[in-house]
Amino acid sequence: MSATPDSIPDFSKMDGLVPAIAQDAATGEVLMMAYMNAESYAETLATGRAVYFSRSRGKLWRKGEESGNVQMVESLYVDCDADTILLKVNQIGGAACHEGYKSCFFRQVTPQGLQVVGQRVFDPKQVYKK
Amino acid sequence: MSATPDSIPDFSKMDGLVPAIAQDAATGEVLMMAYMNAESYAETLATGRAVYFSRSRGKLWRKGEESGNVQMVESLYVDCDADTILLKVNQIGGAACHEGYKSCFFRQVTPQGLQVVGQRVFDPKQVYKK
Repeated sequence: MSATPDSIPDFSKMDGLVPAIAQDAATGEVLMMAYMNAESYAETLATGRAVYFSRSRGKLWRKGEESGNVQMVESLYVDCDADTILLKVNQIGGAACHEGYKSCFFRQVTPQGLQVVGQRVFDPKQVYKK
Repeated sequence: MSATPDSIPDFSKMDGLVPAIAQDAATGEVLMMAYMNAESYAETLATGRAVYFSRSRGKLWRKGEESGNVQMVESLYVDCDADTILLKVNQIGGAACHEGYKSCFFRQVTPQGLQVVGQRVFDPKQVYKK
């Protein structure tokens, strides 16, 4: 049936990565999805802050290290196949998305096209000063 | 910034697949995560029922086709990078997980090991008669 705890999470299916879903612990809103490798998973457990692995940058991504919008992990779950992680988090700063929205899923697909349904919490230009 | 509607969802990053998160539209509970290809995405939009692509079976997975626990899609969202889908669904039968739990994320990772925190809605042996 289920994998043994020793192999949980199962990083073997996707080149060492597993998808990790971050959900607002208070409201249940799905905030974002990113990937974790074994190192980022271990650091997440050790620190209580969500740490992902950035595929585009090829390195650990300590969520909020630049914006300050860290995610404090309140609880962590694995799915039946142990190949996906769910994090219930306290999203510091109120916004998970680098575009300034609370959730990365701020656009709804409708018969009339994409509709922005999320509300902007911050202006990315002010937060990411490059 | 965002991709144009013509390239949404962006199936190019993962061999034609995008992760799709199913969330209970009424309670906000995250039920499962699976993958969609362009064909399953199109069928989902056309039929209003969640259709995934099974990586292990290598074919379309019309969720609930065997168990009857189909997912009626109430709304559908894409994330900022357009490479992940969020579905808000009405989960027929009350359980998304093939192990009989409402959510596939029925196990919590704790310092004491894995704890089953979900409640079983059905007995898999009764539903999947093989």
